Amino acid sequence: MTNWNEIDHNAKKWVQEAGELIRQSFATTLSIETKSNPNDLVTNIDKETEQFLMGKIKEVYPEHKILGEEGSGHDITSVEGIIWIIDPIDGTMNFIHQKRNFAISVGIYKDGVGQIGLIYDVVHNELYHAVKGQGAFMNDVQLPKLKETRIEEAIISISPSWVTENRRIDYRILAPLIKRIRGTRCFGSAALECAFVASGRISSYITMRLSAWDYAAGLVLLEEVGAVATTVYGEPLNLLENSSFFAGERNVHQQILDEYINK
Amino acid sequence: MTNWNEIDHNAKKWVQEAGELIRQSFATTLSIETKSNPNDLVTNIDKETEQFLMGKIKEVYPEHKILGEEGSGHDITSVEGIIWIIDPIDGTMNFIHQKRNFAISVGIYKDGVGQIGLIYDVVHNELYHAVKGQGAFMNDVQLPKLKETRIEEAIISISPSWVTENRRIDYRILAPLIKRIRGTRCFGSAALECAFVASGRISSYITMRLSAWDYAAGLVLLEEVGAVATTVYGEPLNLLENSSFFAGERNVHQQILDEYINK
Repeated sequence: MTNWNEIDHNAKKWVQEAGELIRQSFATTLSIETKSNPNDLVTNIDKETEQFLMGKIKEVYPEHKILGEEGSGHDITSVEGIIWIIDPIDGTMNFIHQKRNFAISVGIYKDGVGQIGLIYDVVHNELYHAVKGQGAFMNDVQLPKLKETRIEEAIISISPSWVTENRRIDYRILAPLIKRIRGTRCFGSAALECAFVASGRISSYITMRLSAWDYAAGLVLLEEVGAVATTVYGEPLNLLENSSFFAGERNVHQQILDEYINK
Repeated sequence: MTNWNEIDHNAKKWVQEAGELIRQSFATTLSIETKSNPNDLVTNIDKETEQFLMGKIKEVYPEHKILGEEGSGHDITSVEGIIWIIDPIDGTMNFIHQKRNFAISVGIYKDGVGQIGLIYDVVHNELYHAVKGQGAFMNDVQLPKLKETRIEEAIISISPSWVTENRRIDYRILAPLIKRIRGTRCFGSAALECAFVASGRISSYITMRLSAWDYAAGLVLLEEVGAVATTVYGEPLNLLENSSFFAGERNVHQQILDEYINK
């Protein structure tokens, strides 16, 4: 039988070790950045971090599958078995330009169902962590179930891209929502944005294109605090396909679906 | 003669002490928040912080004027003399909901010209600091002059409010800009957004309504790294009136004025 406690323990340890490697890279990063293309640079650290995590997983769990942003498992066609879904640095642009507001995201799924979610905000040393059925935590402080929120009080993370002309959604659908809510934010890291919904820092997060590695860990966290995550049209998410993504406190999520998306 | 070195030394010390008081308040804050209206709560901490800073200033510099968000000096009609312009907690909504992404902002002006700017990101313990003609610093590391940026590479902090129907600007003016830039962000603290432009974390910050206390410190920082700040129409800012606010790396700022605002 799968020892989920042991997997959880290892995943947590490896993610923290990977974070330490990223922190150590900052000195080098800063000197390299001036010499070469920022896009090349970040790819190296992204890749190194993914390689580090893959090495650990393959060594201890050779039978597990790995799906990673930087190239691992992009040929996976079934969600059967245990899959580690990894984004070594979620929020790459922030990583380059800000050296903050990025995270390591690791979701561990069995037969398509999220079991463990880890989102590590490296710079702020904040580890969001959830095990299916056992609650969600931030640095070992349990996150309470989300309180019902009304649209008028909602702070929503949404890029201006989705309420101005764009290729993915008619901008007139969500534009009227902006006037009604209390405020908008946009942090530029899907994993952190999921963690912020789960911890009540924002009420909802809406975006038009994510891959499984962006939200796999977040999904486990969100479910543990009673939040909902679907496509922007309210459909279930599919780990093997890119799609829109819409997470939120249950009431706000439903109201937005009813009054804006499906009206 | 005014001893600016001494003023600078004191301002820095008092801002750091105020930050420590806010950090200490977090424990209380968390327990109070569940009992009462979040708006009342934050007003208390805002006011206490402003009172703390005002007490120090009045004691040592009784001849200086003080303009503070929480009520001090709102009757000031002239920028003559030395004015301390204070926002005790800039990013109030973040303070309540996130316990981060807010800052203490203190700008010290003489006859309308910024002399000292202090923006203290309390939770991350990052102090942005500038003295006119002596450069800008983040925790004593000097911020380099901003490098010329093209619009296509720009990351701009702008709320979706200003590119959808709103009462302050025709949304069609800036909406086309969103497609062209590399990305958008929205942190919800004008002072921090100024500090992020000054430190190159974002290329520009555009908003339609600020008061002097939101940007007074930021302006000193921005000038020291060669950035530009005006109203959204390119006009000079007036400390005694609310207005729009548009800060940016010089080239991006000019391009946006030429190609979107004044085209």
